[in-house]
Amino acid sequence: MSLKSERSEIHRLPARGHYDRETIYGILDANFLCHVSFLMDRKPFIIPTAYGRDGDDIYLHGSAKSQMLNHLASGAEAAIAVTQIDGVVLARSLFHSSMNYHSVVVYGKGHEITDPDAKMEGLRIISERIWPGRWDEARIPDEGELSATKVIRIHITDGAAKIRTGPAKDNAEDYALDIWAGVVPVEMRYLIPVTDDKFDREMKIPPTVMRRITH
Amino acid sequence: MSLKSERSEIHRLPARGHYDRETIYGILDANFLCHVSFLMDRKPFIIPTAYGRDGDDIYLHGSAKSQMLNHLASGAEAAIAVTQIDGVVLARSLFHSSMNYHSVVVYGKGHEITDPDAKMEGLRIISERIWPGRWDEARIPDEGELSATKVIRIHITDGAAKIRTGPAKDNAEDYALDIWAGVVPVEMRYLIPVTDDKFDREMKIPPTVMRRITH
Repeated sequence: MSLKSERSEIHRLPARGHYDRETIYGILDANFLCHVSFLMDRKPFIIPTAYGRDGDDIYLHGSAKSQMLNHLASGAEAAIAVTQIDGVVLARSLFHSSMNYHSVVVYGKGHEITDPDAKMEGLRIISERIWPGRWDEARIPDEGELSATKVIRIHITDGAAKIRTGPAKDNAEDYALDIWAGVVPVEMRYLIPVTDDKFDREMKIPPTVMRRITH
Repeated sequence: MSLKSERSEIHRLPARGHYDRETIYGILDANFLCHVSFLMDRKPFIIPTAYGRDGDDIYLHGSAKSQMLNHLASGAEAAIAVTQIDGVVLARSLFHSSMNYHSVVVYGKGHEITDPDAKMEGLRIISERIWPGRWDEARIPDEGELSATKVIRIHITDGAAKIRTGPAKDNAEDYALDIWAGVVPVEMRYLIPVTDDKFDREMKIPPTVMRRITH
């Protein structure tokens, strides 16, 4: 059940490492932006992109002409990171200053999905992870749009989560210092939506949007 | 003056690509979390980490035992991404739904900084990018802590920024659809600081912390 492997093992601060699917997939499902690391001509590349997880698979999508997606379609290996910053930890010493975070790195090989129904399902998974409920409200891709879109499935073979929570931890002697210390929580917030100005009539912001707004 | 190269050229939606240092470094300096892509044994790896930019250099730091930093110390090539999500673009069609973002990918080779003064300066650059003013308030690293820390400089050779701003853009015929469309702005917010509970006296939250708080 564990996704631990030689390459996914956390060597630095091993107590922060987690290898169970529940923890790793929980972090994946709470976010929608990942960074994909891959290599071409023995050189490292990196691309930020949206994703969706389902089972042991990560789905990526984009233009049929995307260099990264075409590369992954050939079965290339990818390392995928998702990083959620939860706070900045300001310790009395800079050495112990840190961040609170929930982060994941998973590994797997790309596989192109070509069957139109399976492609549509992959797109639905990504869409529902980015914006739950939107798939049923917006116009879904037509045949031409589906052809212009590449969908890649990456089967997760191994990975790890790394998590830091809680207060600053200083050296015993530093607690006497007259330096403020604490944690500044950080959160990605969804602000007041800006309705498109091309409507010629009043449009109500749907509940799928309003329920997401944090501020 | 341009950081454009064969590998950094934006092929998809080229109008969103920028290659001038001002744009690229502006995005780098507005953020502090990057993802580093590198390869070991011909396999892709990826690690999220804090960074600071100065001139054409990116500084990374961490444990002297860090696998990534030791690898980069040997002159290995890295691709570094910084991605700032500014909004979720909900178009009438899912095909044209998108995100607003400011993103950067830069490339370069690692170089270990070993001179203690230069190491300290590298750490100061990173610290000031993460939390301006904190370097002068907190206890700076002592000799032992400096030895336990590795500082890597990556000289930026090439790169690109990719930026999307503005409203959703739908197909002409979709504007008649009865589907709400708009942009939901997204922002990383610093919330009310949590003062460490180990103080035996009242501690005032310093201006360097308070001025950063957005909510």
